[in-house]
Amino acid sequence: MRTEATTGLSAFPLTPLRDDRVDEHAYVELVERLARSGVDSIGALGSTGSYAYLDRAERRRVAELTVRHAADVPVIVGISALRTSHVRALAHDAQAAGASAVMLAPMSYQPLTADDVVCLYTDVATELSVPMVVYDNPGTTRFDFTPALYARLAELPSVASIKIPPPPPEAEAAREHIARLRAAVPARVGLGVSGDPSAAAALLGGCDCWYSVLAGTLPGPALEIARAALAGDSGEACAASNRLAPLWDLFARHGSLRVVAAVAELLGLAPEDCLPRPLLGLRGRDRAEVETVLTALSLTK
Amino acid sequence: MRTEATTGLSAFPLTPLRDDRVDEHAYVELVERLARSGVDSIGALGSTGSYAYLDRAERRRVAELTVRHAADVPVIVGISALRTSHVRALAHDAQAAGASAVMLAPMSYQPLTADDVVCLYTDVATELSVPMVVYDNPGTTRFDFTPALYARLAELPSVASIKIPPPPPEAEAAREHIARLRAAVPARVGLGVSGDPSAAAALLGGCDCWYSVLAGTLPGPALEIARAALAGDSGEACAASNRLAPLWDLFARHGSLRVVAAVAELLGLAPEDCLPRPLLGLRGRDRAEVETVLTALSLTK
Repeated sequence: MRTEATTGLSAFPLTPLRDDRVDEHAYVELVERLARSGVDSIGALGSTGSYAYLDRAERRRVAELTVRHAADVPVIVGISALRTSHVRALAHDAQAAGASAVMLAPMSYQPLTADDVVCLYTDVATELSVPMVVYDNPGTTRFDFTPALYARLAELPSVASIKIPPPPPEAEAAREHIARLRAAVPARVGLGVSGDPSAAAALLGGCDCWYSVLAGTLPGPALEIARAALAGDSGEACAASNRLAPLWDLFARHGSLRVVAAVAELLGLAPEDCLPRPLLGLRGRDRAEVETVLTALSLTK
Repeated sequence: MRTEATTGLSAFPLTPLRDDRVDEHAYVELVERLARSGVDSIGALGSTGSYAYLDRAERRRVAELTVRHAADVPVIVGISALRTSHVRALAHDAQAAGASAVMLAPMSYQPLTADDVVCLYTDVATELSVPMVVYDNPGTTRFDFTPALYARLAELPSVASIKIPPPPPEAEAAREHIARLRAAVPARVGLGVSGDPSAAAALLGGCDCWYSVLAGTLPGPALEIARAALAGDSGEACAASNRLAPLWDLFARHGSLRVVAAVAELLGLAPEDCLPRPLLGLRGRDRAEVETVLTALSLTK
């Protein structure tokens, strides 16, 4: 069930808030900008889209706005929540909004077992009429997948892609790592990388999708990397990624969300203080450094 | 602002579900049982009460039911959520329901900084008319407090107590650890222990409260430990705790929540399968082992 929604470059926009409410005007502009940019899909309500902080009504509205303003670009909608019944409700809403695919992470409060996770995906899959992306993001979910668990989940017909954490940075190690995962799941199931700094290596090493934080706010430089890597042009892909090293360094120090939020605010794409509290945006010296990096990389417009 | 609600033995009941809805009948029976038991306070909607999985309406209702059925036992209500504005709404509801205190953990999805956490507690404290317990539970929140951060939060007048993770198990090490934390915060701020297997050592070592998972379902054996330890009877407190070693072993292997859920189900205090999905209850051999331990410890009635 691998589909166009889950191959190529998938761009995850912020969901900017203004005074603790979704800034729909800013959000629509972000989506329309992505729809014009040439990305292969738009990932609404990912971790970058602050799904975990929004209530059901806000998420329904964001899903609807995304589909309405994405032109013909496929939309993936994040449906994760702590409780299975809430995930099912969000899956219903996402499908009703016209999502081309949904993305589900095993969000946790109490640590989850592998059996819990299988049960979650199975319960949700029964109601889906669109493909599902399994979202493996231990940094936010604190759940560690294994290749064996990927294999169990890949038996569900709706699972179209697995969004994997960054592979090792070296090209050969990345290729071997991805080959091991590929061997664990059927060919119909795609492997997409998250962790923008590793994207070039991962796409060159066998991933078929890049679920990208960067592309949600700065699609241009992400497209350069993705197009080169998917065409097998290792030199150009790595060069394009290496040019962004100062940005990757900021991601490593502050987390990608706070950095792209600062970028969006600096570029006028989001209102000031656009993250959901208690998440504070970068301030003072940290924010000035983001501005310096944007200028140095000529990303200020 | 240290109060009776935050000293002694505080019992945290489950919030049992039946077919994905709060089983109000079973919950009220749990609360009334605690009110009769002699515990010093009841902690509604703690981690054990599955607060993280319930929506606002469910949490409001559970807070109201607890206060209504707790007789004159003070009630602490958990108000944690991922978004500050949601915490504020929950604080409002808890106070309207008649809570004697509220408890707030820095629940996280994106990793939080110390500044985020200070801002969260400050924002929430401004609206409180009841004392607040700072809930430090890195196993579920994935946020690590430091003594310096305790000190910053203790400057907020509404902070009455800090619920600390288990201190080291040895008596002397526990005493030294707690003394270091005591030195970091004003005397008016209490220190309460979570982690039932460490409770005897922690109460003997200087904690003034035990926020107890066990007591929410089995108040009797918890009261034995607490009364002895708070009276300074080290021999009796440790003996009472050591008698429960087989239970502590189950807690370590499965997490305390799944074990007390199985206990409550086996004792007829909660319906079968009472945890919120995707959390699966203990089954098969694991559940049989809980039953064996209950029988061996004469805790079957």
